[in-house]
Amino acid sequence: MTRPPAYRQLENLFARLSHLDQATGFLQWDMAAVMPEGGAISRGEQLATLKSLSHELLTAASTKALLDAAAGEELDPWQRANLEEMRRDWLHAAAVPTALVESLSKACSACEMTWRKARPQSDFALVAEPLHKVLELTREVAAIKSQALGVSPYDALLDQYEPGGRSAEIETLFADLKDFLPGFLSQVLVKQQAAPSLPAGPFPLPSQRALGLAMMQTLGFDFTHGRLDESLHPFCGGTPDDVRITTRYDEHNFLPSLFGVIHETGHALYEQGLPPAWRHQPVGRARGMSLHESQSLLMEMQACRSAAFFRYLAPRLAAEFGGAGWDAEAIYAATTRVKPDFIRVDADEVTYPAHVILRFTLEKALIAGEIGVRDIPSEWNRGMRDLLGITPPDDRSGCLQDIHWFDGAFGYFPTYSLGAMTAAQLFDAAMRDLPDLAGDISEGRFAGLLSWLRDKVHAHASRLSAADLLRQATGRKLDAGIFKEHLARRYLGDAGNELRRRVS
Amino acid sequence: MTRPPAYRQLENLFARLSHLDQATGFLQWDMAAVMPEGGAISRGEQLATLKSLSHELLTAASTKALLDAAAGEELDPWQRANLEEMRRDWLHAAAVPTALVESLSKACSACEMTWRKARPQSDFALVAEPLHKVLELTREVAAIKSQALGVSPYDALLDQYEPGGRSAEIETLFADLKDFLPGFLSQVLVKQQAAPSLPAGPFPLPSQRALGLAMMQTLGFDFTHGRLDESLHPFCGGTPDDVRITTRYDEHNFLPSLFGVIHETGHALYEQGLPPAWRHQPVGRARGMSLHESQSLLMEMQACRSAAFFRYLAPRLAAEFGGAGWDAEAIYAATTRVKPDFIRVDADEVTYPAHVILRFTLEKALIAGEIGVRDIPSEWNRGMRDLLGITPPDDRSGCLQDIHWFDGAFGYFPTYSLGAMTAAQLFDAAMRDLPDLAGDISEGRFAGLLSWLRDKVHAHASRLSAADLLRQATGRKLDAGIFKEHLARRYLGDAGNELRRRVS
Repeated sequence: MTRPPAYRQLENLFARLSHLDQATGFLQWDMAAVMPEGGAISRGEQLATLKSLSHELLTAASTKALLDAAAGEELDPWQRANLEEMRRDWLHAAAVPTALVESLSKACSACEMTWRKARPQSDFALVAEPLHKVLELTREVAAIKSQALGVSPYDALLDQYEPGGRSAEIETLFADLKDFLPGFLSQVLVKQQAAPSLPAGPFPLPSQRALGLAMMQTLGFDFTHGRLDESLHPFCGGTPDDVRITTRYDEHNFLPSLFGVIHETGHALYEQGLPPAWRHQPVGRARGMSLHESQSLLMEMQACRSAAFFRYLAPRLAAEFGGAGWDAEAIYAATTRVKPDFIRVDADEVTYPAHVILRFTLEKALIAGEIGVRDIPSEWNRGMRDLLGITPPDDRSGCLQDIHWFDGAFGYFPTYSLGAMTAAQLFDAAMRDLPDLAGDISEGRFAGLLSWLRDKVHAHASRLSAADLLRQATGRKLDAGIFKEHLARRYLGDAGNELRRRVS
Repeated sequence: MTRPPAYRQLENLFARLSHLDQATGFLQWDMAAVMPEGGAISRGEQLATLKSLSHELLTAASTKALLDAAAGEELDPWQRANLEEMRRDWLHAAAVPTALVESLSKACSACEMTWRKARPQSDFALVAEPLHKVLELTREVAAIKSQALGVSPYDALLDQYEPGGRSAEIETLFADLKDFLPGFLSQVLVKQQAAPSLPAGPFPLPSQRALGLAMMQTLGFDFTHGRLDESLHPFCGGTPDDVRITTRYDEHNFLPSLFGVIHETGHALYEQGLPPAWRHQPVGRARGMSLHESQSLLMEMQACRSAAFFRYLAPRLAAEFGGAGWDAEAIYAATTRVKPDFIRVDADEVTYPAHVILRFTLEKALIAGEIGVRDIPSEWNRGMRDLLGITPPDDRSGCLQDIHWFDGAFGYFPTYSLGAMTAAQLFDAAMRDLPDLAGDISEGRFAGLLSWLRDKVHAHASRLSAADLLRQATGRKLDAGIFKEHLARRYLGDAGNELRRRVS
């Protein structure tokens, strides 16, 4: 395909921006995985310079003229979609005055640092003023982007993480879940029996690492294009050509690391599956956070937290860790326990959406100005009581637990549960398209599933909206129904044959 | 100290350039130490974009005006020196048309790739044409920079690695060595006895790594500001706040890795000792390659390849590797063997200068146009015969062995031997200033030596020329005399008491 002149200039500009962004990504990976602490100040300066150069390039006077000129050029569908993503990037960057961007960035740094002190002391008052400042500046940004994008202020923030996402649709989905969850949770808690215990540790870290690497291999991770390392907070970073996932090991419990690696591998497979032809262009990127989270949760929660997978895993655990009692049913029971608790990141699959709904509700109200920072602790505790029937004993276990707001990330939280629902819907469609999938998984064969995901999700990059992609892959728009069915089957049904029954 | 307006703007510009340069440094470290091979193409693009952005910033139309304006401002001595380094950077970058820079860069990449094929096949003809192209473009660059800097074309290339270096002075130093070496080498070979054998391996890699880390600690490496990793070609990278050194392990021989780590630690200590107040400014950088090499060779060849150090090392080798026979005298004998050979990087301290003199002589003639690429193999072999009395059996062991020319690095080679001479002269001065140094080294106490180096070398960064710095530190200008005395003492004298006798 030819590239008309204005569009071609834009491709060159966005390729440079991509290189800068990738450099930033590796410096951030390095900071989390290998950098000695004494490198922190200089690293902050390196990152700030890369980001400001990137911002200067993107918002140069010539960019808007090129975007307008390219809009009138003859483009193929991928080029057209690429141009749309370019315009989105430009709108987000150019809409906000540089001084405001810098004020918000400084306010976030200051607030995050205060939060790091306030959380262990459970002292919300300490961080209230810095958070107020972050919120006010974020509301200013939201108002400006709302004008530029023609959506509500909250949706303008959401759009940064979930392009095209709209809170009205999320509200409908979450209302459905909110109706369903309390009753369902009661049923699960009544039915749930004490889990059989698994063999005790310690589980040596080299064995845990070997197991993680083996599972990455099993799922289809390409080690010529990525690595596994350690960091305090596990993440998936790097670039599609060189995906860096990290984990954290606990000698006394191998499960968090194992499922963490599987989760991050799901993210990594998405990145590794993006189309090389569009490598350094906006349309070549993954399509938003909810779809990204769907790829990690599909592996972690749908494919691998299953009796089928544990039949494959059990003998491998026995080989790696030694000892007896590695029984697939026992592992399944141990890894599908439900218990309402205060901390989101430790939550099980059933109660997790409640945590997200609470944050979504509160952050919408904060951005709309319906509540203020000082209302957060009481509103938080009320929400936890309403949604899960428990009240945090202190703010450390309540509204101080997540870094997001204190670091300025408003509009991100809903993508976790959108991801969970999307994962259920995609996996359900894959089960229909791949009649042998349950059997394959019980024998560690993931090639069919990966190929399906490549075809239905990864290869499309940002060519389609998340909504269109899901409709095309599954035949229906996103709804909570399949996720609810999944929960019902797993937590109230005959767990041992969970996957089999779905394809019979 | 106040910063006048034009100078201040330049400081801001050069701070950004430093951040970009540091980002580049970490991406290069990553490429060598951890990157999976599939990341190579994108990494090349990331690096190219960072470099071209850096070049664009430095050569922007406003830079020359600022340099000229700042020259008329009132500056303190450090600021004045900083301005001089800024001008040097700008001259090197702005003198050469962008198209020529790009042609040379492409020619170097192509030539290096061909060299990687030609070397194992020992096929110089294969790489002659690409090298010819590199040479012609390099001569063009040299001619342009010669005009801009007001020095000879060869010295304009030398200046890139050795600011202020002049080939006339190097010729005098090398002539001295060239007169001395053949006769000296004969004497050494006659006197040299068969070395007692050391305990046999294998030496497990984790033990070698532990030993390397322990020696870094002993020499004074600050692990909050750096790390040790592995790479195919050992190097010292990163930044002063976060120095990344690498090594390579051989299970059957621990000596190359041990001395490699000590060598790179010498480089690293220089970086870690640079003045934080000038962290992101040109004057805050290390002062050229010969002084850098002097810091690595001072540790590797002067301080640690000594009977004193081996008295400290021997019991630690016994503890790490087990077994008997770890005797300081035997280690000394094993690590001070002299043998003329074809490969520079494997050469001992006595024959190494011959390798460098050969390359220096040939590259000067190549840049002057006195010989051409096709003359290289015969001239090389003639030089080896004249200097070391041996003739390479093939070009793989001859003119194809080093990457430098094939990658466009003309003007770099002399800094190796300038570094060796500088190291000898600095260590000699340190021995005079620190009467307990030999005893300290034999007990693993390096704090006094490091403090001396911090004070005499590291703290000055690029405030002084290498020549002025050496004169100030040692009371005399660089000459070959102390290096020759060092060789005579080590290879013809009473080796066991080498360090003691110098301070008695």
